[in-house]
Parts: sequence; C-alpha cells; structure tokens
Amino acid sequence: MGPQTDDDGGRKMFMEFPYVSAPYRDLMVDLVSTMESRLGPYLLPCTLPPDVQYYHNRTNTAFGTLHIRSGIKPSHIDFVFGSWLHCKLPSGALNITSLSAYLSPSTDAPNFLIELIQSSPTSLVLILDLPPRKDLVLHPDYLQTFYEDTQLDKYRKQLDKIPEVRPYYSSSLYIRCSVSPTAILVCIETEPGRTERMEEIVRDHVSVIAKEVFGVWLDHCACGGREVGETDRARLAKRDLMFKSKSIEIDLGSSLPRLFGEEVATRVSGVIRDVFNI
Amino acid sequence: MGPQTDDDGGRKMFMEFPYVSAPYRDLMVDLVSTMESRLGPYLLPCTLPPDVQYYHNRTNTAFGTLHIRSGIKPSHIDFVFGSWLHCKLPSGALNITSLSAYLSPSTDAPNFLIELIQSSPTSLVLILDLPPRKDLVLHPDYLQTFYEDTQLDKYRKQLDKIPEVRPYYSSSLYIRCSVSPTAILVCIETEPGRTERMEEIVRDHVSVIAKEVFGVWLDHCACGGREVGETDRARLAKRDLMFKSKSIEIDLGSSLPRLFGEEVATRVSGVIRDVFNI
Repeated sequence: MGPQTDDDGGRKMFMEFPYVSAPYRDLMVDLVSTMESRLGPYLLPCTLPPDVQYYHNRTNTAFGTLHIRSGIKPSHIDFVFGSWLHCKLPSGALNITSLSAYLSPSTDAPNFLIELIQSSPTSLVLILDLPPRKDLVLHPDYLQTFYEDTQLDKYRKQLDKIPEVRPYYSSSLYIRCSVSPTAILVCIETEPGRTERMEEIVRDHVSVIAKEVFGVWLDHCACGGREVGETDRARLAKRDLMFKSKSIEIDLGSSLPRLFGEEVATRVSGVIRDVFNI
Repeated sequence: MGPQTDDDGGRKMFMEFPYVSAPYRDLMVDLVSTMESRLGPYLLPCTLPPDVQYYHNRTNTAFGTLHIRSGIKPSHIDFVFGSWLHCKLPSGALNITSLSAYLSPSTDAPNFLIELIQSSPTSLVLILDLPPRKDLVLHPDYLQTFYEDTQLDKYRKQLDKIPEVRPYYSSSLYIRCSVSPTAILVCIETEPGRTERMEEIVRDHVSVIAKEVFGVWLDHCACGGREVGETDRARLAKRDLMFKSKSIEIDLGSSLPRLFGEEVATRVSGVIRDVFNI
C-alpha cells in the first residue's frame, strides 16, 4: 500500500470505506497507514485488475473492494490483503471490513487478521488475532514466544469486561481451530437504536486494542526477524497453503456467489486463488 | 478398571466419590463403568502403589485418589486415568473429579477428557472434550471425520442455552490450544445457596451431554479401528509425549505441592511420570 501511480485509483477507493461510520473508518485507515509506513519498502504495488479492485453486482446493491500487495522476495511478507464489502439486504445493510497479513515460509512468525462484520449499526462481530503458523501443542516454545511473552491475552480480557461483549463462535470449525488461544472472537450488541454506544465501544475500546495487537504483530512477527531453516520451510509452506486454501473456500465459497452472483464471484475468487497460489 | 483382585481396594476407594453429591457421583460411576465394560478386555489392572492410589496431606485436610490402567499392547489404548481430589480450604471445599483416556500411536483418533472442578456447591467448571491428536489446520479431513461428521458441536450449543452457563477460559494458554473447536469449556454458577439448581443442571444437562460425548468417543475413537502407518506413528508419539508432559507440568506442577505438600506431590507426580513415560 502507499502511493503508487499504477494502483492509486484502487487504493483510494479501498481507503474511503464509504459505507461505514467514522470510528470504523478511522480504525481501518490507521491500521492500513501504519502497515504501509512500516512494511511499504517490502511490498510490491497492487496489480489486481480494476474490476477486482472494485466490483459490484448487477443490481448495484452489493459493492466490494480488494487491495492485495505481494511481498518483495525474499522479504518475510507473503502478501497483505485488505477488503471491504457492503450489501443492502432485506434485513438491513451488511458491512464486512478486513485486513490481514500473511508471512512467507522464510519466517514462522504468526500472521495478522482483523475482521469487522456489521450486520446492523448495533451489532458487530470482531475477529482479531495473530493466527499461529505452527501446531501449538507440539511447539510450546512458539506459544511462549508469540503469545505468552507478548501478553496478548490481556487485550482479550480487557474487551471481555465490556457488558455488551459476548464470545463469538464461528459456524466454521476450521476457522475456530485456526486461531490462537488469545484470539479475540466476540459479538458486540448494543440495545436497538443505541448506535452511538456501539460507535463509542469501537472508538474507545476496539480501536485501541486493535492498534495495540497490530503493534505487537509488527514488532514481534513482521519485523521480528525470526528466520527458519530449509526443512522447516517446506513444512511451513505446506501448512500455509492448506490454511489459505481452506480460508478461501470458507470465506468466499458460499458468500460471494450469494451476494454478488456467480460471474463476479468466479472473477474475484479466481484472482484471489492466483495471488494465494492455490 | 473392572473388578481385579489386586486393585479392588483402590478401585473401590476411587469409585466411592465420597465428597461430591449424588449427581456428580452418579455421572462418574456411569462413565467409569461404561469404560470398563467397553474397554476392560484391553486394559491391565491398576498397579499403582497403594499410597498413590489413595493419598492425603499431613493435616488430613486434603485427600486424593488415582486410578490408572494401562492398555494391553498392541491395543489402541495407551492408558485410562481417573482421579478425584478433595481439599478443605479457608474459602470452602474444592473438589476436582476427572476421567481421561489416552490412545496409543497405533491410531490417530482423539483422546477423551472430562474434568469437573467444584470450588463451591454453586460453582462448577466443566471441561469436556475429545482433544485432537493432530494439527487440525494441516489436517481438515481429520477435523471433518471426528468433529464435523460426529456433530459434536451440538452438545456445546445445547449447554450454552442454559442461563447459568458461561464460557470458561483456562489461565493456561497451552490447555486452551490443546482442546478441539467443539470443546465444552464452561463455568456454571448458580445463585448463592441454590445448590439444588446446580445439582439439577448436573443431573439433567451436564450428565446427559457428558454420556453422549463419551459415547461418540467410544464408538468413533476408542473402538473406531482407525489405524496409522509407521511414519505417522513416530510423529504422533512425539506430539502425544509433548502433550502429556505439558499437561502434567500444568496440572500437577503447582497445585499438588500447594494442596498436599512437597513429599506427597513428589511421590504422586513421580508415579504419574512413570506411567506417562516422561
């Protein structure tokens, strides 16, 4: 990300977050800008086709953007992945905003993921995690380094104190088992009509915590300089590939065709599969 | 387990569950008896020394039993492990009752675990799970076989509907990451003095669900006949050993010395380490 002549249009569109309110937009713009300033030198420009950087359905009730930048080889960054989508549904508007970063098999440090799913102005699902890239049961030293020593659990506990916050269980067991034991997976619901309370929670709590967790990831994972040897790389690459492939299947497999129609879904997910090398 | 001349005394003591009320005792006796009748032919008698099958502290305020039976080689059972402990503490009585079963590396099917931690008559932590023995992110087919196809998540959802039930987060991140995505990790609290409501929940919900989950484990895991080849066995054995070793460290490392004193803790955990081969 960062100003690039060939993708300025797409970046601009992505960074507008036009369908969500200020606290959400401010958070996402902050995270993306921080990512750009810290990781920019290691990232290629976004080269997605314009009709994948921005796409919509035939009836103009569903809109989406995709902003993907691959890491410059041999950096530790595989790619960073930003997206938002907005759909007018009979039940109201659905807004999904996400930013994730996948590291390459030259390091075994965890990835980063934030996803905000708003099914109404008073209902938010937040997924915020550093998904591990190794089996934590077999590698307690990895758990110690990235999750215990970094004290990530305190952010989960902090958010848990807010009365409107409840645990969220993804309907996908694969998503549930791919997150870390300090993952924040919560559903936040304010009383009907109390939109300002939801925005207060996002501004004063979710944003603060998301930026802190992202800071931990930048310092200890993306820029932590943890290298792995050749044998481990092959193993990591295999696990990474499985994770990316399953994530795509779960995230896009059913929702994209349903929200955007088969043609758009095929185009967008085809490009994502290319980037993911799956 | 099951009547054996050389361990009848220990088994009898273990099966009495003298410090917990009827609904807890009935559940445990049912689970142990079912295990004995289904797995008995594959189990050796319990050969623990008498002062490890039953132990207490110097001041007779803390009592514990341990009932371990190893699997007959080459069965799929590594060993089954039953225990209870009762401690009079300034805050009240603590009762911990557990039953677990570890399978051997000749099969990769999940283990079984139930643990009931009562810190008062109106407060219960329940851990009920089939802990996976493979990295679920790398092996989605394993997730499908043992957790999706068996519909284990419905039991978690069922219990979640009871108003007194809240999610429980173990303070150990290792425990949190070693459980499956369908694990039941809950804290149940009834109003002060409402002991009969707690017993109703244990009898009408916890017991029913625990027996069902145990049935799934018996049918699909212990007696499922899933075999693994030589290469996978070595990998499984390595992961199993790490899991057992960390579990012992977490479970016994701090609580046994604190509750029973150094001498008893050293004796009991030494014997467990022998059985666990760690």
